[in-house]
Amino acid sequence: MLDVYAFATPNSVKVPIVLEELGLDYALHAINVRKGDQKAPDFLALNPNAKVPVLVDSDGPERLVLTESAAILVYLAEKAGKLLPSTGEARARVFEQLFFHASGLSPAFGQSGFFQRFAAEPQPIAIERFSGEAKRTVSVLDGLLATRRFVAGEDFTIADIAHFGWLWRRAFAGVDLADAPNVARWYAEVENRPAVQRGIARVNALVPAA
Amino acid sequence: MLDVYAFATPNSVKVPIVLEELGLDYALHAINVRKGDQKAPDFLALNPNAKVPVLVDSDGPERLVLTESAAILVYLAEKAGKLLPSTGEARARVFEQLFFHASGLSPAFGQSGFFQRFAAEPQPIAIERFSGEAKRTVSVLDGLLATRRFVAGEDFTIADIAHFGWLWRRAFAGVDLADAPNVARWYAEVENRPAVQRGIARVNALVPAA
Repeated sequence: MLDVYAFATPNSVKVPIVLEELGLDYALHAINVRKGDQKAPDFLALNPNAKVPVLVDSDGPERLVLTESAAILVYLAEKAGKLLPSTGEARARVFEQLFFHASGLSPAFGQSGFFQRFAAEPQPIAIERFSGEAKRTVSVLDGLLATRRFVAGEDFTIADIAHFGWLWRRAFAGVDLADAPNVARWYAEVENRPAVQRGIARVNALVPAA
Repeated sequence: MLDVYAFATPNSVKVPIVLEELGLDYALHAINVRKGDQKAPDFLALNPNAKVPVLVDSDGPERLVLTESAAILVYLAEKAGKLLPSTGEARARVFEQLFFHASGLSPAFGQSGFFQRFAAEPQPIAIERFSGEAKRTVSVLDGLLATRRFVAGEDFTIADIAHFGWLWRRAFAGVDLADAPNVARWYAEVENRPAVQRGIARVNALVPAA
């Protein structure tokens, strides 16, 4: 049994998408981060870092509780033997993009959104820094996608799922794709995949009706 | 032949450390980020993201140019068959910590240092946000290290090398380990490893004498 604790967030959506792509059954449980559910003791017992998503895999000899969306992507791809090449440059490129996403694009998008929307007082240097960095990382990705169909090469991999999570929520970060035609072309292709559509629908269904 | 382009930075130091741990020969080339060498055309041809470190591996059938310090750690560990368990929970924990470092501790430390030291005008909300997040991520790590000898379990892995890079430069982020005794114990053990000492010495030697 695979249980996923998640919400309709940029990092959460990656896990249902990979599970749909791999054709694995899973139960999805809402952790309403708008209400602070991620700081409740039951959830902190799963993830002391207080972040969604979390995967619980009860299929193996020992129950595995795993945090960090990209670590979950790697774990599930290796478990299924799909979406992550097993050797060579193709494999190295997937990890390169997973870490460029985790350390570059993802924090830039998150902080850009925070300082534009949530900071109690305007912080102009912070807004400029992070909105600029969000646009810069998209520009780097656009350069890669000028020569590759997908972010790590010619095949769809977990690195596409990682980047898709935050590109899906780019409006929060104040990012558009007007100056990134290759990212726009890639985004449309990924968004059109039936498994991606199903993953998005499942996390959107976690949000209570207003 | 392995060529490493690096400087005495938190992310750079990880690559010489893993190479020393694995006993692999390499040539180290200085990219002086204080002078902006990372934005020179020759370097951008290696890494359009304008970041050190970069690994160039000329040993295989095709020359591989690889960026992102953690992707380099994974590549070298898999090439050597060391410092990254091949299966199971032990392997999953290494990736969990690599991504917790890349997406959590590392950007918090970097932004904490930037807003305390380099921002042209004080940004009090940004300072509080990032110095608080730097301390919080250290506290999460301290909780893990209360029950584990190393960050991903009982064995030294590339996840320890990743976290070590930024803990080595914690003063930049305004972080100390007074409230993190388990991190302090772990840091001392990692710092004492002869290969770690050699890696640090090699990146420090890249800095021109004043």
